[in-house]
Amino acid sequence: MRRMNCLLRIACFICSALCLGNNLSAQTWIWYPGDYEIWLSNEMQNRRTERGTFFPVFWKIDNHYPLVDFHKVFDVSADEEVEIYVEGQYNVKLDGKAFEGYPQKIFVPAGRHKINIKVFNQKSVPAIFVRGKTIKSDSSWLLTYEDKEWIDETGKTSDISTTKWVNAGYWNFNTPEQLPSQFKLPVRPQDAVSMTAVGAGTLVDFGKETFGFIKLHKLKGKGKITVYYGESREEALDTAHTETFDKVYIDQKEGDFVFELSKAFRYVNIFTDPDVHFEKVSMLYEYADLEDKGSFRCNDEEINQIYEVAKYTFHLSTREFFIDGIKRDRWIWSGDAYQSYLMNYYLTNDNETVKRTILALRGKDPITSHINTIMDYTLYWFLSIYDYYLYSGDVSFVRNNYDRMKSLMHFVLGRRNKDGLLEGLPGDWVFIDWAEGLSKEGAVSFEQLLFARSLETMALVADIVGQQEDAQQYAKLAGDVRNKLFDIYWSQQKKAFVHSFVKGSPTHHVTRYANMFAIFFDYLSDEQKSFVKDSVLLNKRVPPITTPYMRFYELEALCALGEQSYVTQEMKSYWGGMLKLGATSFWEEYNPQKSGADHYAMYGRKYGKSLCHAWGASPLYLLGKYYLGVKPTSPGYATYTIEPALGGLKWMEGKVPTPNGNIEVYCSTTKLQVLSPVGIGKLILKSKIPPKCKDGIFVKRGDNLYELKIESNKRYQITYQAF
Amino acid sequence: MRRMNCLLRIACFICSALCLGNNLSAQTWIWYPGDYEIWLSNEMQNRRTERGTFFPVFWKIDNHYPLVDFHKVFDVSADEEVEIYVEGQYNVKLDGKAFEGYPQKIFVPAGRHKINIKVFNQKSVPAIFVRGKTIKSDSSWLLTYEDKEWIDETGKTSDISTTKWVNAGYWNFNTPEQLPSQFKLPVRPQDAVSMTAVGAGTLVDFGKETFGFIKLHKLKGKGKITVYYGESREEALDTAHTETFDKVYIDQKEGDFVFELSKAFRYVNIFTDPDVHFEKVSMLYEYADLEDKGSFRCNDEEINQIYEVAKYTFHLSTREFFIDGIKRDRWIWSGDAYQSYLMNYYLTNDNETVKRTILALRGKDPITSHINTIMDYTLYWFLSIYDYYLYSGDVSFVRNNYDRMKSLMHFVLGRRNKDGLLEGLPGDWVFIDWAEGLSKEGAVSFEQLLFARSLETMALVADIVGQQEDAQQYAKLAGDVRNKLFDIYWSQQKKAFVHSFVKGSPTHHVTRYANMFAIFFDYLSDEQKSFVKDSVLLNKRVPPITTPYMRFYELEALCALGEQSYVTQEMKSYWGGMLKLGATSFWEEYNPQKSGADHYAMYGRKYGKSLCHAWGASPLYLLGKYYLGVKPTSPGYATYTIEPALGGLKWMEGKVPTPNGNIEVYCSTTKLQVLSPVGIGKLILKSKIPPKCKDGIFVKRGDNLYELKIESNKRYQITYQAF
Repeated sequence: MRRMNCLLRIACFICSALCLGNNLSAQTWIWYPGDYEIWLSNEMQNRRTERGTFFPVFWKIDNHYPLVDFHKVFDVSADEEVEIYVEGQYNVKLDGKAFEGYPQKIFVPAGRHKINIKVFNQKSVPAIFVRGKTIKSDSSWLLTYEDKEWIDETGKTSDISTTKWVNAGYWNFNTPEQLPSQFKLPVRPQDAVSMTAVGAGTLVDFGKETFGFIKLHKLKGKGKITVYYGESREEALDTAHTETFDKVYIDQKEGDFVFELSKAFRYVNIFTDPDVHFEKVSMLYEYADLEDKGSFRCNDEEINQIYEVAKYTFHLSTREFFIDGIKRDRWIWSGDAYQSYLMNYYLTNDNETVKRTILALRGKDPITSHINTIMDYTLYWFLSIYDYYLYSGDVSFVRNNYDRMKSLMHFVLGRRNKDGLLEGLPGDWVFIDWAEGLSKEGAVSFEQLLFARSLETMALVADIVGQQEDAQQYAKLAGDVRNKLFDIYWSQQKKAFVHSFVKGSPTHHVTRYANMFAIFFDYLSDEQKSFVKDSVLLNKRVPPITTPYMRFYELEALCALGEQSYVTQEMKSYWGGMLKLGATSFWEEYNPQKSGADHYAMYGRKYGKSLCHAWGASPLYLLGKYYLGVKPTSPGYATYTIEPALGGLKWMEGKVPTPNGNIEVYCSTTKLQVLSPVGIGKLILKSKIPPKCKDGIFVKRGDNLYELKIESNKRYQITYQAF
Repeated sequence: MRRMNCLLRIACFICSALCLGNNLSAQTWIWYPGDYEIWLSNEMQNRRTERGTFFPVFWKIDNHYPLVDFHKVFDVSADEEVEIYVEGQYNVKLDGKAFEGYPQKIFVPAGRHKINIKVFNQKSVPAIFVRGKTIKSDSSWLLTYEDKEWIDETGKTSDISTTKWVNAGYWNFNTPEQLPSQFKLPVRPQDAVSMTAVGAGTLVDFGKETFGFIKLHKLKGKGKITVYYGESREEALDTAHTETFDKVYIDQKEGDFVFELSKAFRYVNIFTDPDVHFEKVSMLYEYADLEDKGSFRCNDEEINQIYEVAKYTFHLSTREFFIDGIKRDRWIWSGDAYQSYLMNYYLTNDNETVKRTILALRGKDPITSHINTIMDYTLYWFLSIYDYYLYSGDVSFVRNNYDRMKSLMHFVLGRRNKDGLLEGLPGDWVFIDWAEGLSKEGAVSFEQLLFARSLETMALVADIVGQQEDAQQYAKLAGDVRNKLFDIYWSQQKKAFVHSFVKGSPTHHVTRYANMFAIFFDYLSDEQKSFVKDSVLLNKRVPPITTPYMRFYELEALCALGEQSYVTQEMKSYWGGMLKLGATSFWEEYNPQKSGADHYAMYGRKYGKSLCHAWGASPLYLLGKYYLGVKPTSPGYATYTIEPALGGLKWMEGKVPTPNGNIEVYCSTTKLQVLSPVGIGKLILKSKIPPKCKDGIFVKRGDNLYELKIESNKRYQITYQAF
């Protein structure tokens, strides 16, 4: 008896200690982690239409666990009344004893108690919201989809069921009324800029690319209404080729009418049957309500405008999840999302959208195909976890995902060819980039590079979760792939990685992909880097990149090589080029050689191209990471560097968000100012003269290279002389 | 060009040939095979309540694929209008070209055409119903949950996506109005036998065990109504201990009221608040509408009554699926269902309920636990496929399930101990039987027996699907386990298998389980069989079996040994014993030593026992298979034996269903009559004199043992002399 009490006390102590952190947070709706994310992504991704036809994804989508047990042990110092809200059919147990029916309120006496809520819901995700004085639903609750509470012939419950419990998933549904299954993005009214009769139709211009629900004011009559959506005027008018339209039949007295599906457009072209009339057209702008934390401004107004349009592009493409583009797919593509994560770290820094997108992309076991069916997209998924950990320092998310990572890597390892390389097997889409004639044959060097980095991520996370044996195994595999990369693909003659390895021989073809990634992955020696710069990046004979998608990495590589001045010019000509053509958001692809409406064509369709594509917003990332020069060097900005580079600008200023506030940087050719709320920073500065700072001492690190330790919440004002 | 035409003609020919068989069938709702079965089982299994509390299962339940592509290629000789009905959001393509919107009717011109319908539905199972003159939805449509229709930069769809297509699942929803998601079992009104005031309550007796919805006639007023359900009078009256009750609050003018959940009961005890009144109580009997095809009658009225009550028990426990019992679990338990399959083959012979139950039990990958968490129940699942194939000859179901079988066996093989035996690991429930003190420690002989048989089933099916390498591997594994069974567990001293193998040594304990199964699995030599009969089956020192569950196999083993006379007496004393206690359906457990209301207790609860349990209905199987003596010897009764055994009865007559009609048998001690609509039979007869038959010639097969070949649709009238 004595011993029992003692053990209980220890258990209580452990529980109190564990609970402490979570009692601070407010109650929130919780669910099996990943399930709501999958469910919501299914809802979102199935809103795509193409010329009035429902257009779903072509890969496997998964479903939630219909039956989930939620529990937590609480120590309550006083009696407590607890409200219970549930999405689904449920039961509630207190210390193993069930309440009758579906209680909405239970009474919990003072003491140590275990509360279980078991929920069944096939239609939407089983979710609970619990609110008492101290008893609240939050991520500290433990969940399972198989509690295995079998009994013996006497009714005794099994004690060897070895059920695996995981921490609850959640978002920000913090009141009982915010049912997760009813979630909708917010909207706000937005007026049109002009409305003109063009032929039999009414052409409405909203002044810029936008997204939402068309609203017809004072609509009345009986008949058909067709709305043709156009990202361009041409598309809206060319009704035989517009990518999206909506048709409805109405029979109503005067009243406002809002279309059911949100769509992307700048223009709409509306046709009605003769008996149908409306007064005005407006829209409900639909958006994810994310705050801009990062910022960038400089003396060059074109760059400022690029930054603003990139921000708008990013916001339009950031919805329930990070999607590719708003007109067409509205799907979560892992490679596209990967860039959104990176841009997010420099603008909105919203962990929730990152985590949600990562979970939705991962889906569930069994894995029957690559993510989005694409080999490279599976590999970006691993990389995204590496980056998320680095930028957020959120170790618990990483830890909770180790099983998901491991089974996905198991799938990947099972698809190596006899040389241990990743080669497209039947059923694998080797994407790389949209580029005419790009060979996907054999084992492509670019995929091996992503593979090596993915294995390094596995080793890192295995180490975090204390799986040392796994960590060693993954590290070894990563080393093997990295060695093969150099042994097989590095050409001393070409001074670059060649594109692929086909039928036992490396090809002679050089493409930019593996070469540019190898730079910012830091896989190359300084000598190799300078080879690659000249023989690939600045070599016009190597096929150019035409998508902002791969421009992202190409310019990143150049920035990593210190070529910001070159990048500034590229940015101005490429993104500035789109602006000069009237772009109000950045495109899926831009080829300066094209002209007029030819710019809108893609995939063999006149308006197939998306004029608002997340991957077009990369200046957000480049300007934050390689101009302001702020990047974490250990998880969550515990340490970080600031290495400003004006790239030809006269001055720039901006903020880079961290988990604990923004790092602020101002930089001109002679003055520099830094303020950070977090960690220990290292300011790295190139200066013609030894820089001066009254609050710190610069250490010389090389020719004209100086370093200053940045402590948190101290404003550093520095004078120096830029090159 | 010439060559292309030729190839096309071949393709057309193949398609025509393939389609021919299916055009004969009517259109029906179709879905991804297994998905509707899982969805419906989730609905059904979550109707359990215990004392007013929702009581879900404790294992993982799965969910349907939310996105499914359906297609078929048709050759239509004339233009055709085709109606399309869909559960979910969908698109329709003809030869790859999408129709706008959600077409309810499409026009298909004469010629060869491919129709695709792609459906998204998270709430319930994506399903379609297609009706044209020749274009119809049926099981010949091909389905996938990942069509992998990715495109290249020109818009061309991939030709290396290697999508796996499977034949559609279906049931009997043959009109557009019969939406699968709205399925309900039929009901019919049934009156009560008596209604008496007992204390403050109204006790209503329905005369026998029944199942359905309580209906209160002319109910009016405002207040609470509580209905206590009792399988016994005691249970209905003992409101503090009744296993199930329903409470509702009403506020209504006079009108009939039907309770929402169907329940099991003979009695209900109804309490109302003072302001609530009703005139009469009746019920809506809820049932699966399966026809009795098999029958049995004999001179012994007690046996006839046992057969009738077994039939009723079987029908009550046969619902959307084969469930265990109607009062309590209402769940699909693999071991229980396994017996229902066997009984079904001798009574209703409904393939659909068997297939549905097998698919629901299997669920989906990944497998995280044994079926129902129970090791033996996973193994019965394999056996059920073996039996289904034998009784139905339905090779396509078996073939379509090979992948499911293989991955489940992969799970099982992964849980062997170092000796290659199945031993309960943490998380495994080793059930065997409800028997006090039955050891589950170590590797139990009974589990190895089921394991060997499961591996034999794998080898059989691998061979059917043409996976010769798999077949050889499984056959080898089966042989290994079978050898170990004899090497490790067979005791020359005990002349029996011992119960288990613990810490490297066989135990000395003998139980009935492995021994009795080994007899009808035909694993024993004749000498071993006779040992087992004396040292185990007829040995009162070996712990007796008290559940009808294991009585099923015990009596089967005795029948297989020719001990029908003994079995008749056992049947009369055991099942007859329940009848003498007033049973109107057969129980979960019966211990003749108990008395009065003690019979109703189980699991430490006063009325915990189920008084209508499927496994109580085994006489259906025993009388058909071992008295009428009819059993298939090759799939679908292509060949079969008839080996009548009166077991002490004076005469018996009955029918045994086959896929092509009933085999009819009449047998007295001197006369025998046989008529079969199917296959080639072998009548095996013991007779004191050489039997005579004018339509066939008996061949002598041993001492007093004669054999006659039975051809289909010939009536054989035989005179003989029984022992």
